[in-house]
Amino acid sequence: MTKKMKLYDFPKAPNPRRVKIFAHEKDIELELINCDMGKREHKTPEFLTKNPSGKIPVLELENGECISESVAICRYLELIKPEPNLFGKDAYEIAYIESRNRHIELELWTQIGTSWVNGPIVGSLGIFDQIPDAKAASDKNVRAYYQRLDQEFGLNNFVAGERFTIADITLVSAIDFASEMVDLKPNEDLKNLHRWHEDVSSRPSMQIEG
Amino acid sequence: MTKKMKLYDFPKAPNPRRVKIFAHEKDIELELINCDMGKREHKTPEFLTKNPSGKIPVLELENGECISESVAICRYLELIKPEPNLFGKDAYEIAYIESRNRHIELELWTQIGTSWVNGPIVGSLGIFDQIPDAKAASDKNVRAYYQRLDQEFGLNNFVAGERFTIADITLVSAIDFASEMVDLKPNEDLKNLHRWHEDVSSRPSMQIEG
Repeated sequence: MTKKMKLYDFPKAPNPRRVKIFAHEKDIELELINCDMGKREHKTPEFLTKNPSGKIPVLELENGECISESVAICRYLELIKPEPNLFGKDAYEIAYIESRNRHIELELWTQIGTSWVNGPIVGSLGIFDQIPDAKAASDKNVRAYYQRLDQEFGLNNFVAGERFTIADITLVSAIDFASEMVDLKPNEDLKNLHRWHEDVSSRPSMQIEG
Repeated sequence: MTKKMKLYDFPKAPNPRRVKIFAHEKDIELELINCDMGKREHKTPEFLTKNPSGKIPVLELENGECISESVAICRYLELIKPEPNLFGKDAYEIAYIESRNRHIELELWTQIGTSWVNGPIVGSLGIFDQIPDAKAASDKNVRAYYQRLDQEFGLNNFVAGERFTIADITLVSAIDFASEMVDLKPNEDLKNLHRWHEDVSSRPSMQIEG
């Protein structure tokens, strides 16, 4: 029996989902280990030896070495199994896809995160002090970014040009989380954005649970 | 005369500085183009064709193609000139260095950014509504992260283990910006962090201006 790589995961957590979609696209099977965030299992001393940041996902290799951060994990999977290519083929394309992935992460995902930690679900846990002004600002930034994306999808079929890449996985996970968990679903009139979302969501890799 | 790649830059801006340090480490010469952020030159329609996010740095290649995002630009430079290696040599090391770089970016740099946009310098420009509660929270997060770094530098000489990598460039630019522009200099009692900072700051690449 071949030993599989383990992915520390939790249902509905968007960052482990990114890795699960990516692995499915690559046809790489991972053993999913439930890390119960409700029980704060991602903050135990044992888990912190796997990732000092106390976050999931974490990929544990066959030799016990661990990699944290969803994009770093996906890049590892790309390097050990290059096809189908999702990070770019030459220096320019690799850099361009990374820049587009970072735009989504640093300009949209961070704002969704601010709305999430200052929203009702996290608020009800009583772990963080809520800052309503911060949520109002980040909600507005998310809405403005959706407008920008809608314009961009009028020009390109995917986030980084004309083919599906890791940047699309980053965006679909952001929008689904924002829609389901933060009440920031894109408005119906953003036709290009919805066209892209429907298109990408029909892929087999998107049908996996959580 | 060989045409050089152009870097859109502005003095004291920390993200262009990351690329300038990286290029110096690689012994790659770039033509610096001043993009005056005071005059909002990074938001002009012409500049937005180079980077739709309206941010610097941007690397313009010899053929006119542009790459935005400092880490994407640095990865491009690594791919066209692999030595000295700053991103990792095998799949595991590449992923590990990326994870460490992301820890610094997503957990420290984002918090410094929140303190900066809600601090007195940006406040005096009157562009953004200030959220003092957000600054109080991010200041606290930055201080807590410095403590974590101090512990980590008790175990490792560099951010990603035992050699200098892009993750050290990310951290030194964060700490210098926080110290000079946001009043978040690390406390003197963080001996390991200061030892690392002195060590890294003595490199020739760190002597470049701005």
